Amino acid sequence: MGFSTLKRLTIITEASVKDDIIKHIVSHGARGYTIDTVYGRGQTGRGLRGERGFRDDESLIGDHLRNVKIEVITSKEAAEKILSSVVEKFFTNYAGIAYMHDVEVVRAEKFVP
Amino acid sequence: MGFSTLKRLTIITEASVKDDIIKHIVSHGARGYTIDTVYGRGQTGRGLRGERGFRDDESLIGDHLRNVKIEVITSKEAAEKILSSVVEKFFTNYAGIAYMHDVEVVRAEKFVP
Amino acid sequence: MGFSTLKRLTIITEASVKDDIIKHIVSHGARGYTIDTVYGRGQTGRGLRGERGFRDDESLIGDHLRNVKIEVITSKEAAEKILSSVVEKFFTNYAGIAYMHDVEVVRAEKFVP
Repeated sequence: MGFSTLKRLTIITEASVKDDIIKHIVSHGARGYTIDTVYGRGQTGRGLRGERGFRDDESLIGDHLRNVKIEVITSKEAAEKILSSVVEKFFTNYAGIAYMHDVEVVRAEKFVP
Repeated sequence: MGFSTLKRLTIITEASVKDDIIKHIVSHGARGYTIDTVYGRGQTGRGLRGERGFRDDESLIGDHLRNVKIEVITSKEAAEKILSSVVEKFFTNYAGIAYMHDVEVVRAEKFVP
Repeated sequence: MGFSTLKRLTIITEASVKDDIIKHIVSHGARGYTIDTVYGRGQTGRGLRGERGFRDDESLIGDHLRNVKIEVITSKEAAEKILSSVVEKFFTNYAGIAYMHDVEVVRAEKFVP
């Protein structure tokens, strides 16, 4: 079997916005996703609510906030659109990070819209 | 210390096939692995059993199935063989996805067969 | 939004050394991190204590040790320094692996020191 290159997109954010982000991902053509519970810690970034769910906290050591990690394997085009739009649409009001990178798969047709 | 390039291989599949896949990975020379419990959702793909454990379900939003994520850092050659053979051997009867990508490590001799 | 390339650094090690490694990461400029509980298995590598928490065990199949996975998105320079120094400083006495790879993000200024 030959290998094809797709993108793996990872979104780590507050659990409360999980369902909205999943709907957003699926509406952009993702054919599946994986969810995991993780714990995050970040610096305060923008106004009231800090990145990764923290506010007014100068130390990065200490209690951790429960976050959700959402992963999708999809086409480069879909991943780029989802990454940009999730940051723009959700991360003004919710703490989160998102990133993507190339992965090699077999049977790429299972993953693409 | 210098950096070497190896492959990180990730397999996300039904928990019931975990032990068989781990035996398969180890028989191909993997010197260690990491396991995590995740929740997955995918579209029906092939006959009775859909991808990622779902059957006859048109919506990607809703209940999630408990899956296992298995990760291995190994040589390019071993990763390619494991990726191809896991998909061929297990993913006809079990729901799952698998992908790999380059990673940089130090002390690469610890990881390779 | 344009995409920038940063590094994602992953450290999988014994839970008992988690806090020390997090302090080490933060002291090298990481602005946030994600923690997950995973289960690992590896071969004995160096003297008394094996890689990934195992000693004197020839089989890779069987009981698994509870580990912690720590992930950081940071600059290439910071990731290289952290990867090298974590292996050198902690993995002589504690079982663990570490690796890094490129990721694309938007709003890279949030992640860098």
